[in-house]
Parts: sequence; structure tokens; C-alpha cells
Amino acid sequence: MGCVLVKNNTIIGEGWHVKAGLPHAEPQALKNTQDARGATAYVTLEPCSHHGRTPPCCDALIAAGISRVVVAMQDPNPLVAGQGLKQLQAAGIEVSCGVLQHDAELLNRGFITRMTQHRPFVRSKLAMSLDWRTAMASGESKWITSAESRRDVQRLRAENSAILTGINTVLADDPALNARVDVDVEQPIRVVLDSQLKMPVTAQITALPGRCLILTCSLDNLKRQALEKAGFEIFYFDNNNGRPDLHAVMAFLADQQVNTLLIEAGATLNGALLSAQLIDEYIIYMAPVVLGDLGRGLFTLPALHSMADKKTLKLNDVRSIGPDLRLTLTPT
Amino acid sequence: MGCVLVKNNTIIGEGWHVKAGLPHAEPQALKNTQDARGATAYVTLEPCSHHGRTPPCCDALIAAGISRVVVAMQDPNPLVAGQGLKQLQAAGIEVSCGVLQHDAELLNRGFITRMTQHRPFVRSKLAMSLDWRTAMASGESKWITSAESRRDVQRLRAENSAILTGINTVLADDPALNARVDVDVEQPIRVVLDSQLKMPVTAQITALPGRCLILTCSLDNLKRQALEKAGFEIFYFDNNNGRPDLHAVMAFLADQQVNTLLIEAGATLNGALLSAQLIDEYIIYMAPVVLGDLGRGLFTLPALHSMADKKTLKLNDVRSIGPDLRLTLTPT
Ligand SMILES: [Zn+2]
Ligand SMILES: [Zn+2]
Repeated sequence: MGCVLVKNNTIIGEGWHVKAGLPHAEPQALKNTQDARGATAYVTLEPCSHHGRTPPCCDALIAAGISRVVVAMQDPNPLVAGQGLKQLQAAGIEVSCGVLQHDAELLNRGFITRMTQHRPFVRSKLAMSLDWRTAMASGESKWITSAESRRDVQRLRAENSAILTGINTVLADDPALNARVDVDVEQPIRVVLDSQLKMPVTAQITALPGRCLILTCSLDNLKRQALEKAGFEIFYFDNNNGRPDLHAVMAFLADQQVNTLLIEAGATLNGALLSAQLIDEYIIYMAPVVLGDLGRGLFTLPALHSMADKKTLKLNDVRSIGPDLRLTLTPT
Repeated sequence: MGCVLVKNNTIIGEGWHVKAGLPHAEPQALKNTQDARGATAYVTLEPCSHHGRTPPCCDALIAAGISRVVVAMQDPNPLVAGQGLKQLQAAGIEVSCGVLQHDAELLNRGFITRMTQHRPFVRSKLAMSLDWRTAMASGESKWITSAESRRDVQRLRAENSAILTGINTVLADDPALNARVDVDVEQPIRVVLDSQLKMPVTAQITALPGRCLILTCSLDNLKRQALEKAGFEIFYFDNNNGRPDLHAVMAFLADQQVNTLLIEAGATLNGALLSAQLIDEYIIYMAPVVLGDLGRGLFTLPALHSMADKKTLKLNDVRSIGPDLRLTLTPT
């Protein structure tokens, strides 16, 4: 969420909300401004009117003498929507709402999904060959896509609040799952579904800064203690088909303030998420190589027997990334 | 191949070569020009100097008093390359060659392939789902791609000299394989590989104008006569793995003046062509749908067991066609 203050056609302040617990965009924008009286505040989201972890932004805008507030979209939380706008209007501030609303909805879709569905916006990142393969039958999978695509994935990681993977991916590849980008970023929370606490205490995933969560169905206390000592936070979930119940996992992540979740997992977990209709967006890196029919596919899915059963997606964006293509698709 | 005549910075004539047997570009351009003396001729290919089915173009340019000829590329036929340029120079004409040569090579690649390799430039057109399926396991395959993509295929057909398919595709779909486009075009020659002469005399493919060839390994005279009566031309080939030898087929098509060949076939023929390294370009229409692991793949290929065996392609062009993507790839 962002806020820009304009007075006499000049930007006099800018601020944005970095993460839960830190100040909202509006006080950030006001902080270094000498005199905001009579200014217009442009905000991507309705200013809050309730006392959360930070004081209400409406109070701050009113106290600063702002005369007009232009709001891209109402707060998607149905309990608060419109309250902030009313409070500003009651204080004599001119309020416009719904300006560039569609863009703001795209920008805020993680927050909107969390507020309205009590789960994060879920993206699945997949790397595949032209023939829909992620790996050879042997499991050999490194370097399907190019160095350019792998660099783009780092940026994608940095844009998400958390990354979810399965224990089998950790055991096979020992990924760090951090965002290796040039700018200083908040590292996404790493989350591993590990029903039986098979995580090795030496896994790379916990060697780097940032939170590292294991969601498990195991009550093995010895393993738990060893993993906690290694830096993991362990959370218990009911077992559903051999793994933590996926809807419960999503609700839990919403409670952890995770707005956007990136899935980096294999065919089994991706197939389960797809079947549970928990994937909001697919980011597919496609390399122009053919791996052959013995290779492993992207999803493990129940058999589709007729064209009528086909899953139709919408292609929202296509980009060349080095020799590869990046496709952005949403379910329809 | 094309020719443009310019005099005093004005285009005074244009011509192009429509098909084998018809006049070349240069006499076409000169035909309606009053006085070409002192003009410059811009040609996409070296003017011919030998008597073929038409008189040599060099003679025509010299007789017309052209003073300068700008040639994009030499004739790729190693037997004639450079002869035309020499003849023009000997007549006192200023000659530049190699201007926009790369573009001309792309434009003339069918002719170049035929002249240098004695086979057509071979494009395979494929329509697939996001998961590399052309059909459900049942064979059900209609409407994977959109109406827009199917319209684009009509244009693609019009751009090729011939279309090659297998008898199983004809028996399954009874396609017309003509180019249904708004402009008046030379219909591509339809060519069917039909080892055992299973072609029904009622097939749609021969119901429309243009040549229709059957390439067979069968010597069954009764069937041959019935099919000839239905409008087909039948040619005999040696049997190689149950079908006409593919290299012999390509040489035959080169002899039929086919510069560019479009493959519209199933996984078996496509796999055989790919294995024989006879596909120069893939045009893949990809619909954003998932058909599932039981569906039929694009190629029937020998098993690839390691990443080192992967087939790497180069992605040359990507275009949105309605809701679908069109990918143009070449082997590397
Ligand atoms: Zn606030
Ligand atoms: Zn000529």
C-alpha cells in the first residue's frame, strides 16, 4: 500500500507499508513533511480507521490538515470497508474513491485475498520443457530453464511474502529458497510441508536469515526439538491424505500475515493444490527443449477422459526471458 | 522472388514470380514500363542467366537498358551462383550484391533449401494444449485451439507450396487441407502418405481445386485406378518402416517444385520426420488448457533417458493469437 501527498502540484511526501507491524503508508508519507495542510493524499487503499498494531491513519490525515483524499479502492475487509472514508468525510475532507480501482485491485490482490478469503493469494511457479516436463524419469531436473529465467525467479521470490514447498523437494534439491537479488529485500518466509518431520537439521533452507516454518502432522517431540534448535518453527496440523490439510495451511498462513504465497513444489503438491482450487496464478517458465514422454509432468492429476473435462486457463502475460518464455495464467 | 524498378527516385515497375512455369519477377516488372533506360532494378535474388522454362532475365534487364542492379542474394543453386551477376557486369551494368541478404535468405529459404538440399523447407504445424497434448486418449481432438488460431492456420496453408499429411489423419478427420482465405491464392498441393492405399475415393481432400497426390508403397492396380478416377495422382515409393521412405519423399517433392512444405500430421509421422531431422521449423499453436496425462502427445519419439539427450530448439517468434499462443521454433 502506498501514499503520495501533493500540494500546489508538487509531491511533498511519499510513503509505503513495508510489512505487518511497521507503520502504514500514510504516517510514513506525513513523517518528513513540514506542512501538509491543504494537501491532497493519493492512497492505493482506503485509510484505516481502527486501532490495530498502529494508530488509525484517518486520525493522522485529519490531524495533518489534509483537505482531499483520493482512494484507489475501499478496504476489502468487509468489517471495515467504508468506515475510513466516512470518518474522513465527517471531518470535512473531500474524498474520491475508485480511481484506478482495477490497477489497485491487482496491486493489492494478496491483501484482498487474505481479507476476503482468509488465505494468501497463491502463485505456483513452474519450470518446464516445451513438452510439459519438469524432469527426466530419473528425477534429473537441473537446468531445464536458462540462467536468465532462474534470475527472474529470484525477483519473483522477493515479490512474495512466503514460499511454500514440500519435503521431497527439500530432500531432493536442498534449495535455499531465498531471494537472491541485488536490492535489499525482506526475505520471504520459507514454509515446508513435512508431515513426518523428515527435514534434516542441516538443510540449507534454515542457514539464511528469515523465518523458516515446518508444517507437520507429526507429534515426535525429539525431532521437533532438534529442528527447533536448528532454527525451524514447527506447527502441527491435522493429517489429510498424508499431508497437513491444505485449506488449514492457507488459513494459518493468512494468520501469519502472508498476503502472497509462492509455490515451488513438485507434481504431487501442485496437483493437490490445483485439485483443491487453491492456485490463483501460474507462472510458467518454459524452455524450448523436448524431454520426451518418459519425463515427469507438472501435475499429478486425476485422469481426464473427455475434452469436456479439460481445465481451461487464461493467458494473461507472455514474456521472453532469455531463450525461454514466461507465461502467466489464471484459472477460469 | 520480387523485382522493383526505380528511376529518378520513383518506382516505375514491380513484379514477382508467382510459381514455377510462370514468368520471373524481372520481365513482370519490365512488362508495363515505358522506358526503363537508366533505371535501377532491386531484386531479392540474382537474375537468372540460363534458359529454363522462361528466357534468361539477365538478357531482359540488359535489353531494357537498366544501368544498376541491386541484388539481395546470389542464386543458391551452386551450378548457377554468380553467373547472372557476371553477365550483368560484362554488359556494363553496376551490380551490388548482398544487400539485406539475411532477410532475403529468410524470404527465399524454401527455394534455398530446395536448391542446396534437394528437398523443400519443412514446417510442421502443431496444435497443442499447455500440457503438450493434441488429443484426449480417446482421440477426441476437435477445438483444442481457438477459432482465431484456426483462421491463422488458413493463412499458413496459403503461404506454403504443399501440405503433407498421413492417411490416418485423413481417415480420422477427413480434412480438406485447402487454404480458406479471403484473397485469391494458389492452393497448396495436398500430399498424403498412404502406404496401403486406404484412401477413400470420397475423401474431401480431392473435392476441391488443386493437385492431390498420394504417395504409396502399394502396387494394387485396382485401387490405384479407382483413386486416379477420383482425382488423385498416385506415386510409388519404396517401403521404409511401413511407409514411403521420407528422404525419397522429400526429393520427389523438390522435383515437383515444392519449395515449402507444411506438415499437418499426427504424432507418428511427426516423430518419424523429427527423428529423420527433416523438420526445419515448428509452428505450434498452444491453447491455455490442460488435457491431462492420458492425452496424446505431439511426437512419438524413442525414449530419452537423460537431460543430455534433450532436444533443444530455438524460439524465434511468439505471438498471441486470440486466447492462444503461436510459437515458431527451429532445431538447433
Ligand atoms: Zn493505516
Ligand atoms: Zn529469371
